[in-house]
Amino acid sequence: MLNLPRLPRSIATVCLSGHLLDKLEAAAAAGFDGVEIFENDLLTYEGSPAEIRRLAEDLGLAITIFQPFRDFEAMPEPQRARNMDRAERKFDVMQALGTDLVLVCSNTQEVAIDDDARAAADLAEMAERAAKRGLRVGYEALAWGRNVSRWKHAWKIVQMAGHDSLGLIVDSFHTLSLGDEHAGIAELPGEKIFFVQLADAPRLSMDVLSWSRHFRNYPGQGDLDVGGFLGSVMKSGYRGPISLEVFNDDFREAPARLNARDALRSLILAESQAGVAELPALAKCEGVAFLEFAVDVAARTRLGGFLETLGFRLCGRHRSKDVLLYRQGGINLVLNAEQDSAAAEHFQLHGPSVCAMALKVDDAARALARARALQCSEWQEHRGVDEKALPGIRATDGTLILLIGPDGDGDSSLSWQNDFHMLEDAPEGPLAQIDHVAQALPTGSMDSFVLFWRAVFGLEPQQAFEIADPQGLIRSRAMISPDGALRLPLNISESRKTSTGRFVTAFAGAGVHHVAFDTQDIFAAVQDFRAKGLRTLQIPPNYYDDLGARWGLEDDMLARLREHDVLYDRDAGGELFQFYSHAFDSRFFFEVIERRGAQGFGAANASVRMAAQARG
Amino acid sequence: MLNLPRLPRSIATVCLSGHLLDKLEAAAAAGFDGVEIFENDLLTYEGSPAEIRRLAEDLGLAITIFQPFRDFEAMPEPQRARNMDRAERKFDVMQALGTDLVLVCSNTQEVAIDDDARAAADLAEMAERAAKRGLRVGYEALAWGRNVSRWKHAWKIVQMAGHDSLGLIVDSFHTLSLGDEHAGIAELPGEKIFFVQLADAPRLSMDVLSWSRHFRNYPGQGDLDVGGFLGSVMKSGYRGPISLEVFNDDFREAPARLNARDALRSLILAESQAGVAELPALAKCEGVAFLEFAVDVAARTRLGGFLETLGFRLCGRHRSKDVLLYRQGGINLVLNAEQDSAAAEHFQLHGPSVCAMALKVDDAARALARARALQCSEWQEHRGVDEKALPGIRATDGTLILLIGPDGDGDSSLSWQNDFHMLEDAPEGPLAQIDHVAQALPTGSMDSFVLFWRAVFGLEPQQAFEIADPQGLIRSRAMISPDGALRLPLNISESRKTSTGRFVTAFAGAGVHHVAFDTQDIFAAVQDFRAKGLRTLQIPPNYYDDLGARWGLEDDMLARLREHDVLYDRDAGGELFQFYSHAFDSRFFFEVIERRGAQGFGAANASVRMAAQARG
Repeated sequence: MLNLPRLPRSIATVCLSGHLLDKLEAAAAAGFDGVEIFENDLLTYEGSPAEIRRLAEDLGLAITIFQPFRDFEAMPEPQRARNMDRAERKFDVMQALGTDLVLVCSNTQEVAIDDDARAAADLAEMAERAAKRGLRVGYEALAWGRNVSRWKHAWKIVQMAGHDSLGLIVDSFHTLSLGDEHAGIAELPGEKIFFVQLADAPRLSMDVLSWSRHFRNYPGQGDLDVGGFLGSVMKSGYRGPISLEVFNDDFREAPARLNARDALRSLILAESQAGVAELPALAKCEGVAFLEFAVDVAARTRLGGFLETLGFRLCGRHRSKDVLLYRQGGINLVLNAEQDSAAAEHFQLHGPSVCAMALKVDDAARALARARALQCSEWQEHRGVDEKALPGIRATDGTLILLIGPDGDGDSSLSWQNDFHMLEDAPEGPLAQIDHVAQALPTGSMDSFVLFWRAVFGLEPQQAFEIADPQGLIRSRAMISPDGALRLPLNISESRKTSTGRFVTAFAGAGVHHVAFDTQDIFAAVQDFRAKGLRTLQIPPNYYDDLGARWGLEDDMLARLREHDVLYDRDAGGELFQFYSHAFDSRFFFEVIERRGAQGFGAANASVRMAAQARG
Repeated sequence: MLNLPRLPRSIATVCLSGHLLDKLEAAAAAGFDGVEIFENDLLTYEGSPAEIRRLAEDLGLAITIFQPFRDFEAMPEPQRARNMDRAERKFDVMQALGTDLVLVCSNTQEVAIDDDARAAADLAEMAERAAKRGLRVGYEALAWGRNVSRWKHAWKIVQMAGHDSLGLIVDSFHTLSLGDEHAGIAELPGEKIFFVQLADAPRLSMDVLSWSRHFRNYPGQGDLDVGGFLGSVMKSGYRGPISLEVFNDDFREAPARLNARDALRSLILAESQAGVAELPALAKCEGVAFLEFAVDVAARTRLGGFLETLGFRLCGRHRSKDVLLYRQGGINLVLNAEQDSAAAEHFQLHGPSVCAMALKVDDAARALARARALQCSEWQEHRGVDEKALPGIRATDGTLILLIGPDGDGDSSLSWQNDFHMLEDAPEGPLAQIDHVAQALPTGSMDSFVLFWRAVFGLEPQQAFEIADPQGLIRSRAMISPDGALRLPLNISESRKTSTGRFVTAFAGAGVHHVAFDTQDIFAAVQDFRAKGLRTLQIPPNYYDDLGARWGLEDDMLARLREHDVLYDRDAGGELFQFYSHAFDSRFFFEVIERRGAQGFGAANASVRMAAQARG
């Protein structure tokens, strides 16, 4: 850990939606110290640069840089002379804005001359003109620059120019997208790095310009080693602002304030990865202590009956609230019908649905401190005398996450149960634990969820899958804790007509759309539950014919699968069996899964399940 | 032109959304003769293969092929033996479906052995097993096949196998995506080509698998020479079905019947390009004869007043209907408030808006015949005695397109005016002609519109632009007739919050969102119209400061532009000036454009315009 004062945190206005004033307000509200003014946001704004300077000052924001100044260096005449005039005009704008730094990105024009000496001479002249006004010029290698695309090359030109008012600007995307090394940045003199920009991105095999313009995202949302990059920059002695610069189609549409909060969270995470700032260490996630459903009295009766067909029993009543506890094996499901509660508010908006997820962690105070440091909003339910105070935070979409730490006796999940009058012990039925909790996300919010679960709880994103729903494509990606104790598949649909899309529309946002329980004997479980009245999702016979051909299963196994409406899959780890309940009010459904070594979620079966659900 | 009987037209079920029955019904309704059964659609369907066969028969559809059979050839044991068992199981399915052909695509598995002789032996054995049941096997090179990725290689293996029941399958995407040549296909013996699949795609620089799975589209919607490819195939003597196979995220969400109609239109176009079938030749588009606005009496008064501030005058009243004609120079705008008309229906749904576009063509009968042959629905307004019968068709979204041919006297645009009592001649104001008509499209419909305008009227898609609206990204692409007489920019937005997105939502579908008129003197036009009371869209001063820096414009020119709220752009052809009116009921607005050589639409100005409009 470097022992540093906190460096200014900055964000480029192009990251955020809206007009320039919306962007500034969102950046300030999230807690940024400064903004990069992206020129197009200035051009489309009705206020003058001086007015923008005042607005930013009133919001407590520095203007860290003005950008981009394109296609400048190594041009033939007459463009060269015109570029110098153009620079003077932009210096006027910078002085009115009150920023001393401009970003010159490497020339992309075909006519640019491939001559480092000319580039250096041009930049030196621009820097000299800037210096006369007390301004500075930063030169950045664009990954798709015509002649200059790597930081080492840009640095060489900056050195050749040899002007105090000219420095280097480095950008994690331009470096990492080319697979370029960043360790060498640590060897540069830090005072010659004038600015650092950070962006992450998913690994995609496409041209780097399209990748950059549409698919960048915030550090921690993608696949690039942004933390390592920033670490190298900091080792150089750089002590200027750390700034986010992201071009992303989804972010252009996202509400600016939510997006800015994600941005700050990602920057804090990157700083901690780079050793610039300290974050409370990750708590260990040990699984789901309980899931809480928001219900009213009528829905509670129906949902309780549904759960009983799955082998759950009513085991507890809350001491002071209208809340019931259903249990089986190690699974706890809380049905909250208390009026004047967060659950009641949730029910008003969303109907019967999961309103909170309680996570077992090895240190709830540390988990809470980390969440706080990562800008999560806290939450505290009002409680009765002697009742357990459960610390809670809001996930990115407002979902409530409760943190259950171990008690003095080392039991990490039982103390909250003291709030309940226990009626009986949890029955030992076919279901043992929660295997995973799957959520449907609103369009465009995958990056936000990935960042939340990765930064706050250390879950790691798994390979993404695409699943064909009859009405459109679903993208699915699971977040899993390092030891597999917590698994959260996240599903997202562009179309509003798919099951996922309809869910998000009906649910007015993200939410849990199914909960999977594990079992040791899936066929016995089906028989038991059917006897209790459960309706399993009916799977078409054609599916089983293909299963036989695909995996060479024995006929009697195929017959058993078919008879029990059990789906089958296999991966490197082994086999997997699963069946699905019918849906409760079209809001959520339950899965029962038997893992014989397989680690996946049966992605190959998901389109069969979705088609069966779409038939209703 | 080859003199052929019409070949069966087929479509793969994966092209269309919904359950298998929806897909079959949509294919039959559009007029296809057969379908490829894509296996996943079978697996997720509750009916048996025999039931599917009956459904298809009842709908008059042949099942042209069963596909795909993956990862078959050149596998090591024990997978090789299991693959033969798998083939037998799929032969059972094929016999129940009543199709005799299966598509084997080249193996993508890492363990596949790179040995053509082994591949040939495996395919020969599969063909022999198929032959015993009267079935056939077609082998296709996947562009991302492990060892076999080109048709020539697949053909070599088919030849080596030397079995009558084994043939080649060729696919335009797999060939053209690799830049592979197709002329050689003409030299193959046609009877050894068992099937041909067609797909187009936009040129994208990304990995071919992602490109194929998400971005294929129908012939005529993309950038590949699918017509040429089909021509080569036909020269071989191939006389089997011509089938579409497209994987496209938007199509998966699109209404199946609209999508199937597009599919058939594209296939007919490809057949005509390949010389397989004849289409009436393109009529020459000579521009817009008139635009018709649906209004009620109140909106007509307001719109008429608006038009008068732009120099238009009321020049005619319809002889029998409640319809007015406003004119200026060569521009005709019809305001239709007739009750019990198509315009009135349009007004009910969409409010005041453009309900029809009348195109001047050199041969209206031929244009209509071509549109008919391309499956456009026809339209005929009821009319009074002696009134002009204007042939009309519906564009892909239902927009009405009227076709105005030349009269006996060679005048192509005046005869429809005989339906009007003329009050005065068209005034000679600053505006001369319609320069372009811009439409906002619903999400996912760009391909559909491109195909319609290209196939029916021969307009060519131009380079696509991305424009930053404050609330999201707009994609814009202009369709232009070969001589530039008709120009139709098409704008589309993923977000519903952008100006384009809000327009589509408010308008309940696509529609004209602005009409641009050309002028010889834009500054005089602004002065004239402002004197008449027009409010021009206010452009921020920052825009002009940048314009000066960017183009090195003289200060007095900059001052003139600023004072008149005129935007400026430059392209290879020359300069361009434009200004915008305020919007009429947030539905549409007018642009005035002065071209001094420039051919574009001022894409660089669009984000400035959108931001100004979003401020309102």
